[in-house]
Amino acid sequence: MRLMPVSKLHFEDFKPGLFAQYGPRLVTREEIVAFAAEFDPQPMHLDEDAARDTMLGGLSASGWHTCGLMMRMMCDGFLLGSSSMGANAIEEVRWLKPVRPGDALTLRVTVLETRASKTRPEMGFVTALMEMFNQTGACVMSLQAPLIFGTRRGAAA
Amino acid sequence: MRLMPVSKLHFEDFKPGLFAQYGPRLVTREEIVAFAAEFDPQPMHLDEDAARDTMLGGLSASGWHTCGLMMRMMCDGFLLGSSSMGANAIEEVRWLKPVRPGDALTLRVTVLETRASKTRPEMGFVTALMEMFNQTGACVMSLQAPLIFGTRRGAAA
Repeated sequence: MRLMPVSKLHFEDFKPGLFAQYGPRLVTREEIVAFAAEFDPQPMHLDEDAARDTMLGGLSASGWHTCGLMMRMMCDGFLLGSSSMGANAIEEVRWLKPVRPGDALTLRVTVLETRASKTRPEMGFVTALMEMFNQTGACVMSLQAPLIFGTRRGAAA
Repeated sequence: MRLMPVSKLHFEDFKPGLFAQYGPRLVTREEIVAFAAEFDPQPMHLDEDAARDTMLGGLSASGWHTCGLMMRMMCDGFLLGSSSMGANAIEEVRWLKPVRPGDALTLRVTVLETRASKTRPEMGFVTALMEMFNQTGACVMSLQAPLIFGTRRGAAA
């Protein structure tokens, strides 16, 4: 195992409470349509005219696209500078408001709980709440994830 | 409201039980890396050498990429030929096994429950379990979603 520099974010650095906020990230019409064309080609994500007649009332990003944008903000914000080992579950994804072309999204990360692994001292679990807000302050998406991080103790071993 | 042809899949067509199976969908190394570069640039999704030292033990698709692939299979499989109105929540996403370059994924859709809207006769809710399997028959991902569909009664109104 390679030694990790101690300046990296490890399991021990996470405490319950507001962790950080990232963004804003501008969302363009072009990327909404490109994502939808590949992964979610429903009218409300592809075409302004068709979208007007849908429940969303206008062109909106696929909810999975919003998940992808959130993941990228998590990576750039803190995961890539951490001992993150990944996650194997996501809970309670809520798509609360449409994400529109031109929206500027902010990600708020709140640590709900931390738990050291009972069996593997080199890792621990950080249950985090991720909330995405648009430029009006409305929460457009929330979800929870049990993130897995390496411990500083494990890195030094 | 436009009339929908009655051959379209509506809320009334969903009954609890196995609904359908779609695929296989081949997953290439190129698309795994392309998705990761845009949305989830962690070493285990980008680079074979770096991935070998991670918990996943080799290059693997971002879990969000697997969600996107599932969504596309759902669209092509039944959503685009239906009165689908979308979904506003996802429950219990489980990434159970790594998705590797060259995997051929199959999607199995099971209807868990259907519920007519009490307040809006034009729509109903279909709680579905989506399971993605690889070519060895291993379940690589599962999740549940309360899908919203227009009713035939609503389409005729």
